This record gives sequence, C-alpha cells and structure tokens, in this order.
Amino acid sequence: MPPPPLTETIPTIDDIRRAAERIRPYAHRTPVLTCQTLNQMTGMSLFFKCENLQKVGAFKFRGACNTIFSLSEEEAARGVATHSSGNHAQALALAARIRGIPAHIVMPETSPQVKQAAVAGYGAEITFCKPTLEARESTLAEVVARTGATFVHPYNDVRVIAGQGTAALELFEEVPDLDVIMAPVGGGGLLSGTALTSLAVSPATRVIAGEPAGADDAYRSLQTGQIQPSVQPKTIADGLLTSLGEITFAIIRRHVEKILTVQDETIIKAMRLVWERMKIIVEPSAAVPLAALLEHPDAELRGKRVGIIFSGGNVDLGKLPF
Amino acid sequence: MPPPPLTETIPTIDDIRRAAERIRPYAHRTPVLTCQTLNQMTGMSLFFKCENLQKVGAFKFRGACNTIFSLSEEEAARGVATHSSGNHAQALALAARIRGIPAHIVMPETSPQVKQAAVAGYGAEITFCKPTLEARESTLAEVVARTGATFVHPYNDVRVIAGQGTAALELFEEVPDLDVIMAPVGGGGLLSGTALTSLAVSPATRVIAGEPAGADDAYRSLQTGQIQPSVQPKTIADGLLTSLGEITFAIIRRHVEKILTVQDETIIKAMRLVWERMKIIVEPSAAVPLAALLEHPDAELRGKRVGIIFSGGNVDLGKLPF
Repeated sequence: MPPPPLTETIPTIDDIRRAAERIRPYAHRTPVLTCQTLNQMTGMSLFFKCENLQKVGAFKFRGACNTIFSLSEEEAARGVATHSSGNHAQALALAARIRGIPAHIVMPETSPQVKQAAVAGYGAEITFCKPTLEARESTLAEVVARTGATFVHPYNDVRVIAGQGTAALELFEEVPDLDVIMAPVGGGGLLSGTALTSLAVSPATRVIAGEPAGADDAYRSLQTGQIQPSVQPKTIADGLLTSLGEITFAIIRRHVEKILTVQDETIIKAMRLVWERMKIIVEPSAAVPLAALLEHPDAELRGKRVGIIFSGGNVDLGKLPF
Repeated sequence: MPPPPLTETIPTIDDIRRAAERIRPYAHRTPVLTCQTLNQMTGMSLFFKCENLQKVGAFKFRGACNTIFSLSEEEAARGVATHSSGNHAQALALAARIRGIPAHIVMPETSPQVKQAAVAGYGAEITFCKPTLEARESTLAEVVARTGATFVHPYNDVRVIAGQGTAALELFEEVPDLDVIMAPVGGGGLLSGTALTSLAVSPATRVIAGEPAGADDAYRSLQTGQIQPSVQPKTIADGLLTSLGEITFAIIRRHVEKILTVQDETIIKAMRLVWERMKIIVEPSAAVPLAALLEHPDAELRGKRVGIIFSGGNVDLGKLPF
C-alpha cells in the first residue's frame, strides 16, 4: 500500500542548495576517501564522505549552521535553544558562537563532564535538568519562555534536514555515478536529507540505511508504516538511540529503499577496520552502514559503487571498545 | 662557513614533477585539513597534509612507487629488495605488487608478527635475519646477489626523495602562500624532498623540521656540519630512529632553516590532540612537527601560515600511549 500523500512540509532540493551556499563560509568541505582493503573485503567500490572530519566532529554542524544562519535578525538576537547532550548541542553552540548569538542548552545533570565542558567551551549557556524526558522538555519550555530563543530540534526540522542534505550534495559532486548511497539512521535527519538530495541529483541511486539491531525503531517504523518509539534501546551506537520524527519519517518511508539492521559486534568490527585501515576516527554510529555491508553479504550489492556517509568521530579515547 | 658545493646527485624539481605524474594513478591525493582549535592553541594558521591517509598509511608509498615505476623493464623483472620492518617495507611491497614484480624484504626475525603479516599480505617475499645491522646488510647482499633485484634504500636515493617531495607539491598546489613548511626528520627522505619542492615552487617559504630530543642526530648533524650517527636513540617516535644519509644531509644542510627538538611527552600530547580534535589517526612520528610548535612558543611563528606534513598513521591500537 503506498504511503498517503505528503502533508508535512519537506525541504526541496533548492532548500538544500541554498543551505550549501549558506554554510559554505563556516563548514568544512569534508574529503571523500577510498580504501582498497575495504573494497576487497566487500567486493564493492566504496566512497566515504568524512563528516567525522566536519567541525565539532559530526555532520550535525551542517544542520545547526543552516538553521542559525536562516534566522532573521530579530530571531537571531534572542538566540537558540535545544535539549541535547550530544553532537547536536555542540554543533548548535558553535554555530551560534559564529553568528554571535546566545545558545541555551538543556542537559541532564548526569551528562558526562567531558560533554558539558565541550558545550561550555563553545560559549553556550547550560541549564541542567533531571535526567528524564519530562524534565528536559519542561526545562526547555521554561528557557524558551524566558529568553524568546528559537528551539532548534536535532532532526525534525526542515532547516536542519536541508543542512544535513548538503553532505550528500558534496559527495555527488565528487562521485556522480553512485549506485547506492548509505547513511546511518537515528532520528533520521541525516538519512532524510541524504535521500532528498539523492532523489533530486541522482534519481537512479538507491538509498539504503544502516541501523543497530538494538535500536531498530526506524526499521520497525518502515515495516509497520507508523512511527515506532525507541523503547529501551541498547547499542554501542549511542548517536542512534532516538526515534524518527514526523518529517523525517515522511521522507524516509517514501525515498529510502530499505534499512539493514546490524549487531553491535559487527559495528565494533567495522569501526576498528576503519581506524586501522583508513586511519580516521569514526564513532560507533558512523560505522553502522559499513557494518551493514559486512553483515549482509546477501544484500546483492557486490560490484556496486556505494557512497557512505561517515556521520561522526566523537569518541572517548579512554573508553574504546577494543 | 657555507657548506661545500654539492657533489651528490640531487633531484631537481622536474624530477619531483615527473614523480608526481608517475605515481598519480596509484597514490592517493591526500586531503589538506585544518583545525580551528589547533589554530587557536598555536596562534597560527595550520594546514595539515594528511599522508597518514596515504596508501599503506604513510608518505613512504610515494617514494617507493616512484622508484619502482622508474625501473626499466629488465630491472623491474628482477624485482626490488630492501631491509626494513617498517613503513618502507610495506610501501615497497605494495608498489611492487601494483607493478607486478617481486619484492624481497629482509626483516629481523624479532620483528612484530603484525608487521610481518602486513608485508606478507602485500605479497612480498620475506627473508629473516638476526637482529643486527651486520646481519641485515649481509642478508640483503645475499638476496640481491641471488635474485638480481634492485636495492631500494628507504631514503638515501634520489628517486625516493623525488617521490617524497610530491606531498609538498600537492600541498603548495592547494595552499600556495605558506610562510613555513614543516616535516619530521628521521633519515631525511621526507624532509629533503619537502625542502627541494619548497625551494622551487615557493622560495620565500621557510623550511623547518621537528625531531625527537631522544633521537636528535639530525639536529647534531646540522650543528656540527657532519652526519652524526644515531646512537641508542630512545623515543616513542619509532619512525625517526635512523640517521641521515649523504644525499639527504646534503639537501637538508643547505635548504632547511632549522630543526626543533621535542620531548616525548609533548609528542604524545600533540598526537592525542590530533586524534581528539581532528579525528584522524597519526603515529607518534607524525605528531613531531606539531609538538615542536607547542614546545617552542619562542620560535616566533605566531600569526604565520604553516604547512605541516603528517607523515603516517601506523599505530598498534592495542598499545596506545594514552
């Protein structure tokens, strides 16, 4: 049964191209790397778009930067706000500092010291809350009411999605003839932006996602045609714990061919392979699409040209899984 | 007192440009990365040429590849040989495999299993010897006598030096207006190739090297005007233990402004900074020039545009110094 017609607003390719122009002065144009060993292991030609080498170490900077530089002067003056303890918080904090506006970050008081320090280091104002979803949301509401800041959702926002789509845009500029493009899926911001770009600039390219089996809400959402919540997810890929949003789900169900789920041990194996053979640092979440290729030799992708977006590289060097 | 006129044959910029053409189909054009955090820490604009992302994880592939593809058909048919247990051995083995010729590698029988496996993995034939310099040299001589293979020195060879100079050539193509260019110095192949390229394509750029204080033979060689042997070197930068050769010394004493020595603790600090902030894996030797900038704030380079060649990224993930 085909999905119902779109009711949500979704970004157009023009939005994505404008986002690319908007963030160009601030974001890295990250390199596309290849690795003979991984090509041999998979029997494919792999092209890795290295968003782990992006500012703040993750693609999240693209969406945050596009959103912040899309704000009117009046909106910007009141600042931005979000609740996050991860890459989105750092990305928003840095983009806000670049535009010279306040960033308010709501973080659980249990967040690791290193993440608090990273966000504070970019000059953001941190408001701590109890480590529950309710406390996060109510604290954020208070901050927004008090400051008039614009709430920037980590993924369910057209400006954020358009920004994330610029990574694939750059990848297709360098490698136009991909058979497949892959991204990991958590909240779906990167995956939906990647799918929209791919559809517009390379309609024959298939879009496939990788997702941890221990946090397979997006897989189940595609199966059931309804957003499934992420209930007690358990995976080393800590960037992929959240469930899809309405906008990202609407895009993903239409434009993503399939989601391949993977076990944590394959994620760790793929992560280590990238460190050892490519000499770059990827976080577990970033290794998920490659893990999917290793775990699903049945996916009939041998001989294909496959683009993979490495989503981030933020790991604690003191706590490596190998 | 100026150094005596050159008697050794040294590569010209045309040799280096031809090397660039020769290796182009086989070597990666590695990215040049920047890092805002490191710029702020040093007060400079740093441009990192990432040879850690080169094939076999080190710049050594450039020199080995140039040498092997410079051989005549007759020479090539007899293969190449060297004694090394490090990056040069892997580089020579891979370049030989690409040309489809034999590579004979003499390695001490005490070499780590992982290095033996890497060289064997590229299809080279390993001949083991006792772990002494005499045994290495006599075993190599036997191999060369038996096979007719061409001995490829790891650095004291004009074809190797010309190959190593192509990294700086690419860096200057992307960032033409460097005030300073830096490389680490061990045997001097990378440093002398870098200096020759810099002199030809950007004569105003100053060439500065970094060297571990625990293996400061190049520093002492420049001070005394004579090649000083590397006696019982002790440093974590295990790629920089060897002493200069006659050709590399001749180039370095003329074209390198100075060598800054650094303590191992600064090397480890610089290495960790690169892993954490740039999300790329560099080996200790590669971190030496950045360490030199951190340890010598008196070097009067604040405000300068500094190119740094990251020489390699081959580390044992099971034995990290942090």
